[in-house]
Amino acid sequence: RIDETRLWDSLMELARIGATPKGGVCRQALTDLDRQGRDLVVRWAREAGLSVTVDRIGNGFLRRSGLDDSLPPIVTGSHIDTQPTGGKFDGNYGVLAGLEVMRTLNDHGIVTQAPLEVVWWTNEEGCRFVPVMMGSGVFTGAVTLEHAYAATDAEGKRLVDELSRIGYLGAQEPGHHPIGAYFEAHIEQGPVLEAEGKTIGAVTGVLGSRWFDCTVTGMESHAGSTPMSSRRDALQVASVLMQEVAACAHRHAPDGRGTVGRVEVFPNSRNVIPGRVKFSIDLRHGDDAGCAEMVDEIRAKAAELMASTGLDIRLEEVSAYPAQAFSPRCVDAITRASDDLAYVAMPIVSGAGHDAVHVARIAPTGMIFVPCRGGISHNEIEHAEPADLAAGCNVLLQVMAEFADV
Amino acid sequence: RIDETRLWDSLMELARIGATPKGGVCRQALTDLDRQGRDLVVRWAREAGLSVTVDRIGNGFLRRSGLDDSLPPIVTGSHIDTQPTGGKFDGNYGVLAGLEVMRTLNDHGIVTQAPLEVVWWTNEEGCRFVPVMMGSGVFTGAVTLEHAYAATDAEGKRLVDELSRIGYLGAQEPGHHPIGAYFEAHIEQGPVLEAEGKTIGAVTGVLGSRWFDCTVTGMESHAGSTPMSSRRDALQVASVLMQEVAACAHRHAPDGRGTVGRVEVFPNSRNVIPGRVKFSIDLRHGDDAGCAEMVDEIRAKAAELMASTGLDIRLEEVSAYPAQAFSPRCVDAITRASDDLAYVAMPIVSGAGHDAVHVARIAPTGMIFVPCRGGISHNEIEHAEPADLAAGCNVLLQVMAEFADV
Ligand SMILES: NC(=O)NCCC(=O)O
Ligand SMILES: NC(=O)NCCC(=O)O
Repeated sequence: RIDETRLWDSLMELARIGATPKGGVCRQALTDLDRQGRDLVVRWAREAGLSVTVDRIGNGFLRRSGLDDSLPPIVTGSHIDTQPTGGKFDGNYGVLAGLEVMRTLNDHGIVTQAPLEVVWWTNEEGCRFVPVMMGSGVFTGAVTLEHAYAATDAEGKRLVDELSRIGYLGAQEPGHHPIGAYFEAHIEQGPVLEAEGKTIGAVTGVLGSRWFDCTVTGMESHAGSTPMSSRRDALQVASVLMQEVAACAHRHAPDGRGTVGRVEVFPNSRNVIPGRVKFSIDLRHGDDAGCAEMVDEIRAKAAELMASTGLDIRLEEVSAYPAQAFSPRCVDAITRASDDLAYVAMPIVSGAGHDAVHVARIAPTGMIFVPCRGGISHNEIEHAEPADLAAGCNVLLQVMAEFADV
Repeated sequence: RIDETRLWDSLMELARIGATPKGGVCRQALTDLDRQGRDLVVRWAREAGLSVTVDRIGNGFLRRSGLDDSLPPIVTGSHIDTQPTGGKFDGNYGVLAGLEVMRTLNDHGIVTQAPLEVVWWTNEEGCRFVPVMMGSGVFTGAVTLEHAYAATDAEGKRLVDELSRIGYLGAQEPGHHPIGAYFEAHIEQGPVLEAEGKTIGAVTGVLGSRWFDCTVTGMESHAGSTPMSSRRDALQVASVLMQEVAACAHRHAPDGRGTVGRVEVFPNSRNVIPGRVKFSIDLRHGDDAGCAEMVDEIRAKAAELMASTGLDIRLEEVSAYPAQAFSPRCVDAITRASDDLAYVAMPIVSGAGHDAVHVARIAPTGMIFVPCRGGISHNEIEHAEPADLAAGCNVLLQVMAEFADV
């Protein structure tokens, strides 16, 4: 059994880096705070006797040797970057649960047959740089290193420069080593486990997702002297399309999701009719055809609005990953381990994207969900119970031991 | 007759301060660039033999003595602050046309009976600090000095600190001297004069205006894992209200105007459902009862949305001025002067607010409009023809001379 207190204390210590007044964490990818978070995890890894390797996209691999180091490692992990108003658990739990597994094995002097690794993936959140789930995307070949390096944040800073600036531009070629199996522990970030009274979610798969930047171009003019009939108001047109994003997702219930999270208005002055509005669109669906239908519906609405208003509307796809089913063998192992440990488990689908989505294409992959209060995540009030976090970590310990010893 | 080339050259020289790549000007109130603009106008005023006084809200009065300096001055002017994507003429024309009148009188050695003054009013645009038309508002008592001083920009900088920082926190009590009459020359900023083929608009009055900040509060949560049915998406609710702002103005055609110019989304991350959206509402109408009806309709829609969605919606009024009719005597003088000078004139209503609105409550006031291309203003492509600008300035010269010699 893992040490619940040690796991919790580590989570709370990491959460101090970038702590917000409302109890959350703001530690966006490749900021100085991200560096501090990485440094702390590296220190803990060294203290636990793990070797540390950083690859060219800044993913960090914390390795514990096995009896036979020629075997591909059994890997676990997640990410430690957060949203601007993020919580203490999203991602961080997966990395520190992995570290706690290593510490527990150390405590008992257990050496597995295959080596074990804990990984942190770079820029999972995708809020500062797109695409989302970047480190695992590059590792598995879904995203090229060139594309990732060229990503810029809102201020125009390039990802590769930020990676180098914080000292985490490693030398190892991403994806150079095979993975025996991958398990990721994570808070659910949704309401299902709590509502169903279950402790463990054996994740069967993840919704596919497509992200767009939409730009509506009208013409700036005076809010007082321009008659209503001759306006080319980019915001009035954009807001119709924003509503269509949600309406479209409602039509595709229960699996469809549609969100406009980011909006920029130019010139953003009270008495100027907006000349340009740029906003993000996040669409998700349980199957790729469903997601493609949603995209078609948004495009159709955009075309209709262009025709009726004469304003230009552009949609640029900036990130995408298909719906992904996880390995039945891994899902089954998680369910069995939960039963053995007497935790009530259920199969569950993830609405959130995870690095496991990418890894699932190159290795048997499973995810272990634990409940979070009110299903709330990407919010500073995100909370999970120490006992639930410990339960997920015990399941992780058991499945990793099982896969590493076969 | 005034010197068309000198007026144009002065406009172009002032427009170099804060010039934008697209041919416009970005010289927002109380920035370093505003200071440079003020410094240039002061230099020109001194060269023209005018005395310069700055009051406690940073309004500048450039005075030319009359034969009887005990008479209240005949005043003209406007503002030199601009929108973030502003043009070369809005406001600047009114100040430099006033200066050109002074220069022309100097050229001919004419001394008027009453003294003359050119004024620049502080922060007319209202884009950096509210309320709009602040300097004239303080001068005429519509806005208290305390309220104006406490205004903050988007970064939290206080107006009084910025005023002092740029060296234009003067000593004179605002409004300490009476005004004999006030004339403001301005580009129309709307399409009417151009469409009607007229050179001069004799402005009969200005639409009233009310500005609000609207804040919708929902709850941030994850864009992937939060089911559509349990979202509290502040942007989806805000966008309905944004559309109502325009719809309401259309219902109050032709005089009603409704604009959402400024939007801020929190936390503004692609995969976070917005927890809070703050946006501006600018409503205008030709009569105050009509404007009040528009406000009631927006409030009713907000209340309906609060009831149906459960999200909190707050409306805070941040700026307001009533519809204002100008002095028939001044309007008549402008029409007569246009006729004398053989310019085709017409009566016109201003949709844009002007410092003249405030001044009209304390002195006989009139405004002289000249056409601008396509009726476009608050846009970097704003343009007016040198001949039209000269025409307006000649009318200004004539009416000021008439009023100053009576
Ligand atoms: N798990 C998680 O929060 N991932 C962020 C990527 C996304 O699903 O939007
Ligand atoms: N004339 C002018 O552009 N004034 C700005 C104030 C407003 O009408 O919004």
